[in-house]
Amino acid sequence: MTLPPEFSLIARHFRPLAGPGALDLGDDAALLDPPAGLQLVLAADAMVAGVHFLPDDPPATIGRKLLRVNLSDLAAMGAEPLGYLMTTAFPRGTPDADIAAFAAGLAADQAEFGLQVLGGDTVATPGPATFSLTILGTVPPGAALRRQGARPGDEAWVSGTIGDGALGLLALTGRLPPDPHLAERYRLPRPRLALGRALRGIARAAMDVSDGLVQDLGHLARAGGCGATIEAAAIPLSPAARAALAGDSSLLPRILAGGDDYELLFAADPADAPRILAASAACGTPVARIGRFGPGKGVVVLDAAGAPIALPAGGWSHF
Amino acid sequence: MTLPPEFSLIARHFRPLAGPGALDLGDDAALLDPPAGLQLVLAADAMVAGVHFLPDDPPATIGRKLLRVNLSDLAAMGAEPLGYLMTTAFPRGTPDADIAAFAAGLAADQAEFGLQVLGGDTVATPGPATFSLTILGTVPPGAALRRQGARPGDEAWVSGTIGDGALGLLALTGRLPPDPHLAERYRLPRPRLALGRALRGIARAAMDVSDGLVQDLGHLARAGGCGATIEAAAIPLSPAARAALAGDSSLLPRILAGGDDYELLFAADPADAPRILAASAACGTPVARIGRFGPGKGVVVLDAAGAPIALPAGGWSHF
Repeated sequence: MTLPPEFSLIARHFRPLAGPGALDLGDDAALLDPPAGLQLVLAADAMVAGVHFLPDDPPATIGRKLLRVNLSDLAAMGAEPLGYLMTTAFPRGTPDADIAAFAAGLAADQAEFGLQVLGGDTVATPGPATFSLTILGTVPPGAALRRQGARPGDEAWVSGTIGDGALGLLALTGRLPPDPHLAERYRLPRPRLALGRALRGIARAAMDVSDGLVQDLGHLARAGGCGATIEAAAIPLSPAARAALAGDSSLLPRILAGGDDYELLFAADPADAPRILAASAACGTPVARIGRFGPGKGVVVLDAAGAPIALPAGGWSHF
Repeated sequence: MTLPPEFSLIARHFRPLAGPGALDLGDDAALLDPPAGLQLVLAADAMVAGVHFLPDDPPATIGRKLLRVNLSDLAAMGAEPLGYLMTTAFPRGTPDADIAAFAAGLAADQAEFGLQVLGGDTVATPGPATFSLTILGTVPPGAALRRQGARPGDEAWVSGTIGDGALGLLALTGRLPPDPHLAERYRLPRPRLALGRALRGIARAAMDVSDGLVQDLGHLARAGGCGATIEAAAIPLSPAARAALAGDSSLLPRILAGGDDYELLFAADPADAPRILAASAACGTPVARIGRFGPGKGVVVLDAAGAPIALPAGGWSHF
C-alpha cells in the first residue's frame, strides 16, 4: 500500500526532530516519564500567517518564532524546557523545500534550547499557514514565577530592549527603512530562559512582554492590585530603535505598546536590586529598572519633564 | 486602561473551563503537579473548517469533536484524561454567540470525560476557523497500549461500528439522504476510553481508526512486521450504515477507507478472546473480530465469497 504524502512529509521532515518519548511519532500519543520532584509548566500559542508573522518571512524562522514565543512563556515562569507538541496547517501546495526549511529551523532551535518534539499533527489548509505549539517545562515545586505578587513600592524591571520587534515589523513592511537587527528581533525573539531561572526567589512577579510593554505592565500591576509609573527615558532601547526614534518621535507609542518584545517584565523589592544585577550579569542578559509599582491602578508613562505621555489604549488584540 | 476584546472573550468563555493548574488562564503558563507514579501520555491534533469539520457544523459540536479526537488518541494508548491546552483561531467577526456555544460544548465534554482546560491561546484569522488541541493523559508505567506488537496469528478486532463518520459526512453534504445518527457520528466521535483502559495487558497492539480502517490496519500490521486479512462481512456496521450500503453497494470503499471512525483497532492473541469479550461487556462497548494478522505485508479485505476486494490506495491524506 502506498502511504499518502502526509505520512512521507512527517517522516522526512518532523521525525528527525523527535525526542525519546515521541515514539518516533509513530504512535497515537507520546509517552513521557515526568521528571521526578518537579512541577510541569505548560503553555500553548498559535500563529497565523499575515497576523503573527509575515507571509514572506523565511520558512526557517517561522517555526522558530513560534517555539521561542512559547519558550518565552517558560522563561516568564522561571521554568526549564522539556519538550513540545506542534500542529502545522500548511497551505495546499506549500513547496517541500519550505517545509524542509521550517523543520531545519526547528532543529537548530531544539539544539540551542535543549528540547525535542514529542508529537503533533500535520494538516493542509485552504487558508493562511497556521501553527500551534504546546510547550512543556519544569520548575521546582513552588518556585515558579507568577504574575501575581507585585506590591506598591516594588520596582519594575525589564530585560533586553523594548520596541525592536514592533519596529522590525515596520521595517519589514516598508514603513521604516530596512534594518537587519530590527527584522531579526521581529522574526526571532530571544527567550530569556536563563534570566527567568535566575529570578526564582527574587522577582515578586513576572511575565513576558508579548502584547506591548504598557499593556503587559498593566496586567502585572492589576494582578498585584496596584498601579505602575514608568519613565520613558528609562526604557532600554537598542541602538537601532534609538536611531529610529530620533528620526521620528511619533514612533514612541509603537515602541511602548507595539508588542513582539518577548522580554521579561518583573517586579522586585528595591532591596533586591543588587541580586537582580548580579543575576543579569551571571546570565549575560541586560536588565533595566524602568519605574515603580504604587497604589491605585493603571500605568502612567512619564516623559523627561515628568509629564504623563498619552498612549493609545491597550496593546495588540486579535479581535 | 480598557482591555482589548480578546481578553474579555477569554475571560467570558474560556476561563470558566479552566482547571486548578490553569491559574485562571491568567499567567503565562499552567502549573501542574504530575500524578505520582504514572507516565504522561501526550497527543495533539488540529482541525480546519472545511477540511476536518463542516463550516456549518453547530459551533457547540466543533470544539467537542476536536477534544474527542484527542481523547480517542488517549483511548488508543489505554490512558486516562488529565487535561488539555487548546488554541483557537476564529475568523474575524465570529459572532460572540458562536464562541459561547463552542465553549459550552467543551464544558459539556469536560464534565462527561472528566478533564479541564489548562491553557491555550485565542487569535483571529483571515482564513477558515482553525483549532489545535494538545491533550495530556496518564497511564501506569509500562501499561500503555502501543502500535507495535501485532504478530502473525493474532486476531484483529475493532470497537463500535465502522463507516458511520464517513457516511455522516456524505449525509451532511447532500450526497446521501439526511440521517441524524450518521451526522452525529461525524460530528461527535465517541472516544473509547473505558475499553482502551480495559485492554491494557490484553491487546498486543492498538490504535484508533482515524484515517480509514484499511489504512490504519495497514499501520498496525506494518508496525508489527506483518500483514492482515479481514472479512468485509465481519466489519461491524450500524443499522444506518447497513441500510445505506444495501441501497448503494459502491459505498463499501467509503466505509472501509473513509476515516472519521475514532474506534479502537487492536491485535490480540486468539486465546484472549474471552477476556476481550468480558472487557467489552464490562464497559458497554461492543467489539468485533474482523480478521487476522499474518505473514507478509499489506491488508487484504475479502468479500463473502473469499475473493479480495479492490480498494483505492490509502485513506484520507491532507496533502
